[in-house]
Amino acid sequence: MWKGLLHHYRDLLPVTDRTPELSLSEGNTPLLPIPTLSKELGIEGYVKIEGANPTGSFKDRGMVMAMAKAIEEGSKAVICASTGNTSASAAAFAARAGLRCIVVIPDGKIAQGKLAQAVMYGAEIFAIKGNFDQALEMVKKIAENEPVTLVNSLNPYRIEGQKTAAFEVCDALGDAPDVLSIPVGNAGNITAYWKGFKEYHEFGYALPKMMGFEASGSAAIVRNQVIEDPETLATAIRIGNPASWNKAIKAKEESGGLIDEVTDEEIVHAYQWLAQSEGVFAEPASCASLAGTIKKVKDGTIPPGSKVVHVLTGNGLKDPATAIDQSPVHPTVIENDFEAFASAVTGVKS
Amino acid sequence: MWKGLLHHYRDLLPVTDRTPELSLSEGNTPLLPIPTLSKELGIEGYVKIEGANPTGSFKDRGMVMAMAKAIEEGSKAVICASTGNTSASAAAFAARAGLRCIVVIPDGKIAQGKLAQAVMYGAEIFAIKGNFDQALEMVKKIAENEPVTLVNSLNPYRIEGQKTAAFEVCDALGDAPDVLSIPVGNAGNITAYWKGFKEYHEFGYALPKMMGFEASGSAAIVRNQVIEDPETLATAIRIGNPASWNKAIKAKEESGGLIDEVTDEEIVHAYQWLAQSEGVFAEPASCASLAGTIKKVKDGTIPPGSKVVHVLTGNGLKDPATAIDQSPVHPTVIENDFEAFASAVTGVKS
Repeated sequence: MWKGLLHHYRDLLPVTDRTPELSLSEGNTPLLPIPTLSKELGIEGYVKIEGANPTGSFKDRGMVMAMAKAIEEGSKAVICASTGNTSASAAAFAARAGLRCIVVIPDGKIAQGKLAQAVMYGAEIFAIKGNFDQALEMVKKIAENEPVTLVNSLNPYRIEGQKTAAFEVCDALGDAPDVLSIPVGNAGNITAYWKGFKEYHEFGYALPKMMGFEASGSAAIVRNQVIEDPETLATAIRIGNPASWNKAIKAKEESGGLIDEVTDEEIVHAYQWLAQSEGVFAEPASCASLAGTIKKVKDGTIPPGSKVVHVLTGNGLKDPATAIDQSPVHPTVIENDFEAFASAVTGVKS
Repeated sequence: MWKGLLHHYRDLLPVTDRTPELSLSEGNTPLLPIPTLSKELGIEGYVKIEGANPTGSFKDRGMVMAMAKAIEEGSKAVICASTGNTSASAAAFAARAGLRCIVVIPDGKIAQGKLAQAVMYGAEIFAIKGNFDQALEMVKKIAENEPVTLVNSLNPYRIEGQKTAAFEVCDALGDAPDVLSIPVGNAGNITAYWKGFKEYHEFGYALPKMMGFEASGSAAIVRNQVIEDPETLATAIRIGNPASWNKAIKAKEESGGLIDEVTDEEIVHAYQWLAQSEGVFAEPASCASLAGTIKKVKDGTIPPGSKVVHVLTGNGLKDPATAIDQSPVHPTVIENDFEAFASAVTGVKS
């Protein structure tokens, strides 16, 4: 029986005898082969399905660690800014632990599933008339002056928890892949994976090339400039001033990898292809990883036969509206009449 | 590395040398303790989080089996009627396997997340102006006459796959619980769990009491009559003429359990309590199990100290609208101004 990340990777995490046992059964997510896409692309591809985490995103890995340390340190309240996934995770673990949770989101700019989560878990939610970067500035300022623990990725325990995903990839494959392909928003996750791979490298595991992909409308690192008004349908990575900017560049440079951008069109293509060819429904931002691989296979940067792990950061159910809006297919409405139905189901009759 | 149900429970399933390896990494879902609710209720409670399955519901267990056998038997197309979870699962596994998938849903009566899934996975979707029971009649008739495999729970392989959830409960606890508390809609799941527990009983494991709970607006088994116009916000169990009616009664009688009903109000209470006290967000229908336990603890049917496993059939993200609509809490909209924010966050300042 899986007892969560703090239990399983205890020796590799800042867990002390005073750290409370806290878990929603996060981690231990599937690493699924994607045979159809692999054949088409000429690679050996996998997806790391982080949407299988308790609140449907990779954020649970870092949050369980940050929340446990907050409790250990006597905190009674936590705060974060969020495009939605962080707030869902913070709210869930705070509910589990009995802590107050304050979340600040950009008004009208988070996916419906994520708002539903924060509401259900009982967080105090503030929708700011601004973007994520502005929300983050506010919560930083509050946390500096008030007795409330910041659980954004600036909290160093977040990265510690998140690095366990790299451990799991290595554990599942028996070694690191050739390429780790990952969406880049606030850049905490690419930082965490790289930290995890480097720690496993000490035990003799290989190091992958880190390939990070921003959405074109918020490609601050690629353009080397803060994007004042980031825009992309991949709302989870709609961040114009990534908190872990320098660490992401370091991960790229140390690993011999790259950080590039993909357009919303490329993201949507990957999003639909993944669902229809492999039966995997991830949130749009997640699919920046696959979109990036497609681009980098085409231009020859990823050589044929490469073992590529794609991080799918969040569950597709987080954002049902985008799935429906972007689809060319819609339900055919029919009368409750067998003949009408039978004739509508064309091609079944042989 | 978990390789899915057909691999893990191969010897206990109708898997032959000709059965294809098919998996989306279904099964192996968390059995999570619920300490806060357990204390309040005076029981030892757990939740079996079936929303962690690849398409977010327990349906994936039966669907992987049914789909693998359809492929083994040479089928090129599958069909089902669905309140949403079955169609999502069928569409995903059909996409994975390269089969055509036809789904029939009640028009306007399925949760948004579930529609998004069927759309994304590329199913051919027909929305019938009728209810689930009428949709089921239609697909049965098509499947009888045309070369298309029915993958509703009338397909016997569905029950075979679904029984693995009982195996997992026993594997995690080391034995069966005292009580298995489970929502009842079409009654396939209670049937499958009971079959699974009986099979493990052959190996010396105990048998639980099976306690099934219908929604009051579609409580056909409890009332002993077909409900012509079932109504409940727990749309996943909004079924007035359960296909496995007799088998559910058999599970109840053989186990010394019961089948009772819970109101929408009781379901919503359990749904919110579970999220806010334990950090677990399940879809409304799932919470019929917890609502049922609350009722049965109050009336003394479940004695203090009982070990009770609650089946949470689906992920809360399947139905974000109900979460938001039912909540008394909503985001506070504030200006992008620090002073406005700081004064809105009352009580943080010490």
